[in-house]
Amino acid sequence: MSAPEPESTFFRSRWVDPPAGVEELDPAQLAPGFRAGAAHCGLKGGGKTDVGLLACDAEDVSSSILLTRNASAAAPVRVCRERCERGAIRAAVVNAGNANAETGEQGYADAVAMCDSAAAQLGLRPESVAVAETGVIGVPLPLEAVLGGIGEAAGGLSPAGGAAFSDAILTTDRWPKRCTVRVGGVTLSAQAKGGGMIQPNMATMLCFVQTDAVVEDPDAALRAACDASFERITVDGQMSTNDTLLLQATGAAGAPLPGGLLEAVLLQLAIEVVADGEGSSRVGRVQVDGAASQAEAERVARAIANSPLVKTALFGRDPNWGRIAQAAGMALAGEELEEIGAENIENTELAGEESEAEIGLRLDRGEHSAHVWFSDLGYEYVRINAEYTT
Amino acid sequence: MSAPEPESTFFRSRWVDPPAGVEELDPAQLAPGFRAGAAHCGLKGGGKTDVGLLACDAEDVSSSILLTRNASAAAPVRVCRERCERGAIRAAVVNAGNANAETGEQGYADAVAMCDSAAAQLGLRPESVAVAETGVIGVPLPLEAVLGGIGEAAGGLSPAGGAAFSDAILTTDRWPKRCTVRVGGVTLSAQAKGGGMIQPNMATMLCFVQTDAVVEDPDAALRAACDASFERITVDGQMSTNDTLLLQATGAAGAPLPGGLLEAVLLQLAIEVVADGEGSSRVGRVQVDGAASQAEAERVARAIANSPLVKTALFGRDPNWGRIAQAAGMALAGEELEEIGAENIENTELAGEESEAEIGLRLDRGEHSAHVWFSDLGYEYVRINAEYTT
Repeated sequence: MSAPEPESTFFRSRWVDPPAGVEELDPAQLAPGFRAGAAHCGLKGGGKTDVGLLACDAEDVSSSILLTRNASAAAPVRVCRERCERGAIRAAVVNAGNANAETGEQGYADAVAMCDSAAAQLGLRPESVAVAETGVIGVPLPLEAVLGGIGEAAGGLSPAGGAAFSDAILTTDRWPKRCTVRVGGVTLSAQAKGGGMIQPNMATMLCFVQTDAVVEDPDAALRAACDASFERITVDGQMSTNDTLLLQATGAAGAPLPGGLLEAVLLQLAIEVVADGEGSSRVGRVQVDGAASQAEAERVARAIANSPLVKTALFGRDPNWGRIAQAAGMALAGEELEEIGAENIENTELAGEESEAEIGLRLDRGEHSAHVWFSDLGYEYVRINAEYTT
Repeated sequence: MSAPEPESTFFRSRWVDPPAGVEELDPAQLAPGFRAGAAHCGLKGGGKTDVGLLACDAEDVSSSILLTRNASAAAPVRVCRERCERGAIRAAVVNAGNANAETGEQGYADAVAMCDSAAAQLGLRPESVAVAETGVIGVPLPLEAVLGGIGEAAGGLSPAGGAAFSDAILTTDRWPKRCTVRVGGVTLSAQAKGGGMIQPNMATMLCFVQTDAVVEDPDAALRAACDASFERITVDGQMSTNDTLLLQATGAAGAPLPGGLLEAVLLQLAIEVVADGEGSSRVGRVQVDGAASQAEAERVARAIANSPLVKTALFGRDPNWGRIAQAAGMALAGEELEEIGAENIENTELAGEESEAEIGLRLDRGEHSAHVWFSDLGYEYVRINAEYTT
């Protein structure tokens, strides 16, 4: 099955509504004030880059970082939680190929060493450097090789390093996920990678966003945009050990982020992550209306989005509304429910040719709604995950 | 992929411990006092039987019935809930091929008509006849054909009808699931069918158990045996709309059920349902120890058993302990957790040749334990569910 290679423009999902007048720039070009670089240290085969370094030149950057809530969080996530000055992160160092998860005290020390090395290369305090890692779990990090890669990446930092950085952080992704966009006098660049283990909190494996806009409350801005994007997707219902989302803003442009820009960028990236989930061939969006509470709407939408029966129907283009009713009934087990019939369900797009399919369910129990984006489940998912080696 | 056709003896799982001295009889032979029959009415292709009828000759049968809690419960489940004298069910009428779920008022009327027809054929009150149906959801029942099948099945009722009844209730099952066993002066026969949508409550699609033992409290006996068997399995995490488990006891043998007999029979049948889950090739059992509470132990065990990453590892014989740690960490999201390492996880059987594989996780958080049986996830699951037609 060939990958559904996206078109060249960035905002291509029907579900994304970017601000008017937004201009797309070369995604290699980072937002002003940022530089990035990459290197190959041997974690990936074939000479592919697997170490990335991202740095902000401005001293008074404002930042926000969101990290997985998985109780088996990887060493780099623990280091970011415990050491980083989360509002003032100047740089990020990343490896792709080894998650450094479930690697014990040595793994923690290795993640600290990555931070320290990047900080030394960049002339920064270690507390202002975030570390992110992705790849196999439970395998010790080849630290010396990674430190060598960090040195090489630091030597090649460039304002045009966005594409190289974005390539370096990929693992099983079939295409890079990145953009640089400009509107309202500000520039924003972003790079993401996906794969499996994609479910809130938080959905993407890794995502980095840079801007020269003034962002007064980066935590609130990032939380709101993430809630509407990466928190609303699922590939396999599996929360990762390594999810990391970093926003950095210099404020040099002297203007705020235009309304909806961050949301649109993160949503497009989140949908890319679903579209490029392990073996994905289609993206579904389920809209649940008429739930008795917000929690109920969310529970029903996620039950449908994570049902392997619904996901195989999306793959097989089978307009099977019975499976939607069954999943909703499971989420509402023990409740009194008016029977769900075909008239409650919008499922025609399941059978369509489009790569994006919308399904709907109306419950007639109240006024609450929720929606979730999800991938299909096909042979490729099994192939990738049954043959992936520990 | 060929089906892992089981051997000829019934108690063949390593996890089942039948009472000493149990004798296996021909499964066509029902427990004394019961008769069954089957017919073909056209719901299944190829002339396969698709209507089954089961009747107890004794007037003072004691019975218990457990029904799905899915809020989208099918018409036959609603009929059983609302009409049946649940402690005194004399007979059961079944069709396989049409679930009669999400079929509105007509579906309810059709399920009532099946009960009424069976009752008339058997000379019973309609309230003493249970109805069960399984198959596609949302398709109107061809009632006249089904009623014809009931008449034909009633005409062929026989004490040796266990195998015919068991064959008639199958849908996507690759082999029948049935036994007749004798120990301590009592006989017990049972017939089950599985498929997809297998997760508590309650795990099997349909299961019928007959005995001539004295069962003083059938609700308690069935609940306890079900909690240790069908409530502890998952194929795809999907609670069905139609699950039904019926126990009937005549007491004619004058002796109680030997301890552990009902549990062993239901557990073997439950494991068969997992082994024959849609496309299954292996059965896993995850044992979680050291949880801080019973609820936590259950949550972690189910998160592991339902993780598509663990299920594909079981299929691919990949001893991937990182995915076990990740699923456990997801189930414990937000909790403080000592890092899970390889020393906490028993995973060698994942890579083994056996069709039954045990995995273990030790949490060191308390004294509570739980276990769940689960199927693997392979290409056949996708093929069956992507090509199954509404």
